[in-house]
Amino acid sequence: MKVLVLFSGGVDSTTCLGMAVAQYGKENVTALSVSYGQKHTKEIEASRKIAEYYGIEHLYLNLAEIFTYSNCSLLSHSEREIPQESYARQLAMTGGKPVSTYVPFRNGLFLASAASIAISKGCEVIYYGAHADDAAGNAYPDCSDAFNRAMNDAIFIGSGRQCKVEAPFVGLTKAQVVKIGLDLKVPYELTWSCYEGQENPCGKCGTCIDRAEAFRLNGVVDPGTVKEL
Amino acid sequence: MKVLVLFSGGVDSTTCLGMAVAQYGKENVTALSVSYGQKHTKEIEASRKIAEYYGIEHLYLNLAEIFTYSNCSLLSHSEREIPQESYARQLAMTGGKPVSTYVPFRNGLFLASAASIAISKGCEVIYYGAHADDAAGNAYPDCSDAFNRAMNDAIFIGSGRQCKVEAPFVGLTKAQVVKIGLDLKVPYELTWSCYEGQENPCGKCGTCIDRAEAFRLNGVVDPGTVKEL
Repeated sequence: MKVLVLFSGGVDSTTCLGMAVAQYGKENVTALSVSYGQKHTKEIEASRKIAEYYGIEHLYLNLAEIFTYSNCSLLSHSEREIPQESYARQLAMTGGKPVSTYVPFRNGLFLASAASIAISKGCEVIYYGAHADDAAGNAYPDCSDAFNRAMNDAIFIGSGRQCKVEAPFVGLTKAQVVKIGLDLKVPYELTWSCYEGQENPCGKCGTCIDRAEAFRLNGVVDPGTVKEL
Repeated sequence: MKVLVLFSGGVDSTTCLGMAVAQYGKENVTALSVSYGQKHTKEIEASRKIAEYYGIEHLYLNLAEIFTYSNCSLLSHSEREIPQESYARQLAMTGGKPVSTYVPFRNGLFLASAASIAISKGCEVIYYGAHADDAAGNAYPDCSDAFNRAMNDAIFIGSGRQCKVEAPFVGLTKAQVVKIGLDLKVPYELTWSCYEGQENPCGKCGTCIDRAEAFRLNGVVDPGTVKEL
C-alpha cells in the first residue's frame, strides 16, 4: 500500500514520516511539503534534508497565493509580530478565538491538496501529524478532533472511498509523539519548528516553547537546538 | 454579510452567483474562479464576462500544479478522451465508480481554498452550486449530499465557526436550478459548460447533454447555444 505524508519538516510530521517509512517501506512513501508564504521557510529546507535522509519521494507545492488576503502573523507579508508566549497565554488574550498564528483553514487546505494528489498517485492513505496539544483550547480549530473527523469523512466520501486520512497522534501529546520518534530514531537534529525565520530557533514563540517542553518531558536534550553535537 | 461564491462560469455556479447578488447585494459578493488545468479554459473567459456583467469582485486562482499526476480526461495534459455519453451510460461502464471526468477531490480542494480566502476576507458564507443530478449514482462523489455535509462541517469547525458553506441547490435537479436562474434573469448566454475546449459547445459530452435537457425541461431554448439572438 502507498501512503502520502503531509510533511512540514517539524517534529510532529517528521515523526509521522518516520512511522510511515517503518510501516510501509520507503518505496511506498511520498512526502508532500507545502509553502504557503510562511516566515519560516527554513522548514522547507529542513523537509528537503529529511526526505533525503529517508530516501523517499518528496513533492513540493506552493499555495502562497491563497493566503494573499490573510493578515495571519505567521505569513511573511504580514506586519503583525509572532507572539512570544505560550498558547495558553495567547488564548487567554483572544478569549478562546483562534490565535494570531492561525493560518485560515490551512490544515483543511493541505489535506484537500493531499487528497487530490494521493488519489492521482494511487496512495490509499494520507498520514498527518495533528496531535492533542495543537487542538487544546481552540488555538488551532483545524487541528481539533471534530475537524479531523469531518475532514476525514469528506475525503473518504469525496474520493469515492479511494483514499482516507490517518492522524496517528490525534489522541497524543507532543511529548508522547516525541517518545515514539525517539524510539524510531527520527533525525530530530534535521527538523525545524520555530515560527521566526531566523538563523537559529528563537526559543520564545509558542512552537519553540512546546518543542522544548516535549523533549524535556522525555528527559532528552532537543538535538535541534544543539549546535555542536 | 459578505459572501464568497465558487464560480466556474457554468450554469449552476452562475445561477448561484445570481442568487447571491440578489440576496446580499453586489458590493457584498466576491466570486472565486479556479483554473486546474482543464481543457475547457473557455469557462474562465466566461466567468470573467459574467463577473463584469454583475459588477462584482472576481478572484482567480491557478491550482493546476496539484493535478499534475492525475490522468482525468478533463485535464489538458491527459491523452484520455472525454466520453461523449450521458453520465448514466458512463456509470454503467465504470460499474458505479467515478467517471473519467472526475477530477480527484476537486470540489473538496475548491471548497478548502474558498474557505481559506473567505476567512481571510471576512466572508461568513461560501456559496456553491452543487446539485442533485451531479451526485447521482456516484458519478462525482465530491458532489454528494454526504460529502457536502462532511465538508461543510470541516469548514465550520476548522474555521473556528467563522465561515460556513451553503449549497442552495443540493436537493434540486439541474432543471430546477435553471428555473430559478430564469426567474432571476441570469445571463445564461454568457455561460460556458462544454468540457471540450472548442470554439462552440460540442453538444455531445455529459455536461452538454445535461445542460440541453435542463433548458428543454423548462421549455426554453438554451441561450448559450444560440449564435444569433
